[in-house]
Amino acid sequence: MEKIDIKPNEVAVYALGGLGEIGKNTYGIEYQDEIVIVDAGIKFPEDSLLGIDYVIPDYSYLVENIDRVKGLVITHGHEDHIGAIAYFLQAVNVPVYAGPLAMALIRNKLEEKQMLNRVELHEITDGSVINFGKTSAEFFRTTHSIPDVFGIAIKTPVGTIVETGDFKFDLTPTTKQKPNLWSMARIGHEGVLLLMSDSTNAERPEWTKSEAWVQKTVDKLFNQLQHGRIIFATFASNMNRIKMATDAAIRHGRKIAVFGRSMESAMSNGRALGYLDIPDDALVEQSQIKNIPDDELLIMSTGSQGESMAALARIANGTHKQVRLKPKDNVIFSSSPIPGNTASVNAVINKLEEAGANVIHGKLNNIHTSGHGGQEEQKLMISLMKPKYFMPVHGEFRMLKVHAGLAEELDIPAENTFIQENGDVLAMDGVNPPRLAGHFPAEDTYIDGSGIGDIGSVVLHDRLKLSQDGLVIVTATIDLKKKEILSGPDILSRGFVYMRESGDLINDGRHVIFNTIRKAMSQKNASESDIRQAIIDDLSKYLHKETARKPMILPMLIMV
Amino acid sequence: MEKIDIKPNEVAVYALGGLGEIGKNTYGIEYQDEIVIVDAGIKFPEDSLLGIDYVIPDYSYLVENIDRVKGLVITHGHEDHIGAIAYFLQAVNVPVYAGPLAMALIRNKLEEKQMLNRVELHEITDGSVINFGKTSAEFFRTTHSIPDVFGIAIKTPVGTIVETGDFKFDLTPTTKQKPNLWSMARIGHEGVLLLMSDSTNAERPEWTKSEAWVQKTVDKLFNQLQHGRIIFATFASNMNRIKMATDAAIRHGRKIAVFGRSMESAMSNGRALGYLDIPDDALVEQSQIKNIPDDELLIMSTGSQGESMAALARIANGTHKQVRLKPKDNVIFSSSPIPGNTASVNAVINKLEEAGANVIHGKLNNIHTSGHGGQEEQKLMISLMKPKYFMPVHGEFRMLKVHAGLAEELDIPAENTFIQENGDVLAMDGVNPPRLAGHFPAEDTYIDGSGIGDIGSVVLHDRLKLSQDGLVIVTATIDLKKKEILSGPDILSRGFVYMRESGDLINDGRHVIFNTIRKAMSQKNASESDIRQAIIDDLSKYLHKETARKPMILPMLIMV
Repeated sequence: MEKIDIKPNEVAVYALGGLGEIGKNTYGIEYQDEIVIVDAGIKFPEDSLLGIDYVIPDYSYLVENIDRVKGLVITHGHEDHIGAIAYFLQAVNVPVYAGPLAMALIRNKLEEKQMLNRVELHEITDGSVINFGKTSAEFFRTTHSIPDVFGIAIKTPVGTIVETGDFKFDLTPTTKQKPNLWSMARIGHEGVLLLMSDSTNAERPEWTKSEAWVQKTVDKLFNQLQHGRIIFATFASNMNRIKMATDAAIRHGRKIAVFGRSMESAMSNGRALGYLDIPDDALVEQSQIKNIPDDELLIMSTGSQGESMAALARIANGTHKQVRLKPKDNVIFSSSPIPGNTASVNAVINKLEEAGANVIHGKLNNIHTSGHGGQEEQKLMISLMKPKYFMPVHGEFRMLKVHAGLAEELDIPAENTFIQENGDVLAMDGVNPPRLAGHFPAEDTYIDGSGIGDIGSVVLHDRLKLSQDGLVIVTATIDLKKKEILSGPDILSRGFVYMRESGDLINDGRHVIFNTIRKAMSQKNASESDIRQAIIDDLSKYLHKETARKPMILPMLIMV
Repeated sequence: MEKIDIKPNEVAVYALGGLGEIGKNTYGIEYQDEIVIVDAGIKFPEDSLLGIDYVIPDYSYLVENIDRVKGLVITHGHEDHIGAIAYFLQAVNVPVYAGPLAMALIRNKLEEKQMLNRVELHEITDGSVINFGKTSAEFFRTTHSIPDVFGIAIKTPVGTIVETGDFKFDLTPTTKQKPNLWSMARIGHEGVLLLMSDSTNAERPEWTKSEAWVQKTVDKLFNQLQHGRIIFATFASNMNRIKMATDAAIRHGRKIAVFGRSMESAMSNGRALGYLDIPDDALVEQSQIKNIPDDELLIMSTGSQGESMAALARIANGTHKQVRLKPKDNVIFSSSPIPGNTASVNAVINKLEEAGANVIHGKLNNIHTSGHGGQEEQKLMISLMKPKYFMPVHGEFRMLKVHAGLAEELDIPAENTFIQENGDVLAMDGVNPPRLAGHFPAEDTYIDGSGIGDIGSVVLHDRLKLSQDGLVIVTATIDLKKKEILSGPDILSRGFVYMRESGDLINDGRHVIFNTIRKAMSQKNASESDIRQAIIDDLSKYLHKETARKPMILPMLIMV
């Protein structure tokens, strides 16, 4: 590992994740012998990461400096900010400071991993200040799409570093938890050395609409939709939206049924923590919905992103066990497609509409708003904080870039803004210009099942190949001494579409391999490995000629 | 005058103008023996107020309490906030506190009236605090469409009253005078009893675009429009926009010619005060523009509202002395039509386009933004100030109403918001609910030429009649004793269109009057007045029958 050279009069700032990407937000603020970490998020894998459950940062820099890590402060309870907490604490077991909802979700995660009794958790609220010694962290309330969201001001002897977390300025939040404008203005007035601010919506030249605006639409829809069931699809992570729909259902005398594992879990968390005010008798079991009149039922469902395995897609496809679509059903998408999901969302909408459902979706219907502030709110945050230096975080490169442009419009000189990469260490002494003090490894670590970091690029390459052209397995029993094929060769395939329909292809393929094996065996000192390679080469060539495809070929030879 | 009953433990707040209207903003804050007045604006007359130059408040309440009025604090230099200053100071000569640009404009006005040596003027800036004794006024910087704009916090022993003045939250102002978010948050944190906030754009559910956004378009246009003259039409009151256009002209090597009296005056003020950075040699006299190549000329012009007498309309009509429209001319409207002016603006645009000019106008072209904040900014102001009570000001009734609704969304109970009328006195003791402590007369006062308040509703009714159907004057010399008509009757008309073309109508009309006079004279004890009335009645009836019009009939009788 490259030498990181931070001087005693410098505060250093870096990301383990969150720069150049949406996800795995994990930022470090380091002064002398104290390191404070903000958030411990996961990233959801891109499509090319086949079979990967999620991606977490490489914590090795923190492990090497484990004695100096003083605490983990959490901005809010979304997966890209707390999802990796168990892995983080396995690597670096330090006290965790989080607001009520994030803390409840963290407890769930740690309980699952049977780690709850081995960690130190502290609940914070708006205005909480945590002292680590030379540094401290002050939490200030912001707004987003769930309750209990905070920005954090890390105060160090060199200056104050503010990490906004995810935010919008929702002045009429349905949570009634208003952004603490006074704290932000005060922290800005006291002086901010570096502002690290959420870049998600840097490309939107607007002020993001309040959740109260969505609330009005939801209320109007529940008024209008007197007939038929209402199926409400949104992100399970959007607690505010879940509250909106369930509140409306209760006001309009509809029972609530919940479909989708993450939605069930969100509902049960929300009720336990008091964010959702749903009496027991307002809920109905999945199996009982057939006993409820259509116009007295609300179905809360996952799958607003068109996910093929989610409840909504299965309802649309007619493959859902409990819910058969009816012509008078009303389906509300209270979400907007994440780029890349547009096609699958449209496919689900088409299927729902073909089945006769009334589908309400899209921006035109005023039933979704972002949880992140647009340019005007990003500018307001910078204007409140008036930082000397600026680091756009939480976003892909082009978002960071646009966000940096906004800062320049606000008279932060371009040379005072730092678009960094994960692992870059920015050191500031408050007097001289900030400097790059080194770089530590900050590659993606893949989580697949229970394994951490045991999936490399070869595995992923294989999965990609498999996903594209399938698999052909060749079995044969060979006596290498006698140079005889005792059984086979046989061909088995998965995901190689031509095979099933083409007996000729299989038969001809077997002949090809038979000859290949015989030829390979006849060579002097032929090894198993030589035969395997010959099979792969010849069959691959043959199949590509016949089908223009290159399935993965896997010889399973039994040598006797 | 009704008794106004303000108790010693109460602070009272009222408007002399500005409620239920756009214009003549004049607000009073009164505590014991101290009255502080915010702004002294005029209102531009509605079309029905014929010949009225402008409208000012009725100052009689202040005159009656003249000994208690301690000062006039000014938010900014627009006419609807300082236009009546000479009339105000004639009524109540108190010290005036204003920012640099407003002060310069005030000096101009007072100089015109030769009052400059009789008044006390104090220049203020962001953060200035004026002590009046028990009350004080703190100025905090906001943003609008001209430089030097302030909100004012009037601190009294009962609580703080904040009057925002006109504002938007322009975080990237082209003036480089940023809104003082910190002061606003601090004042809010210290506690605000009553917020009086600008309601102009309460019906726009948005965050108003920054002037910087318009700046980008102006720059782009000057880049694109390489050929032909550029004629730039905007409000002379929009100093920011004037700066934008003239800066662009200088960068692109265009000389600047100025047309329209108010634009000339704005340019000269702006240069004198340093808001406009225009060297002498960048300007060109009106008479010299023919010597400048078309692609090196910018014409700054009034008339963006389609005003028929303004430079732009005369250019469009081909009646302007110096500027003849050419096919390659580019005309930029950096404004949006005030409701009511749309038709006349469109007429000017049509004429310009018919003459072959390239006209750039409208919101689609991104060349205008409002100087007032939309709903999101109004919500931000309320969120920063966190007032106990709220009074929407500066707006017509429906705007005040919508603004009140926004306050309610921000959890200010409806009963804590006061939609008042001019002259209503709201008294607050900070403990009990506010109460209406009376009402003083606050009717419009009309200014026509040099007269103040000498134009009543009869005169206006006459002007309306004249404007619609014209005037018919009847002259005759009558010897009432001898009951003889010595000369006439003759008929003279103005604005009564049928007359000129119809000799018959005139001749027949003269016969009618002749008979009328003879008949009237024949009555016993007939007076001049009887004859006049008879002429009016009969001629009116006759003309209405013939033309369906009712001109004003004015008998000019010489009695011998």
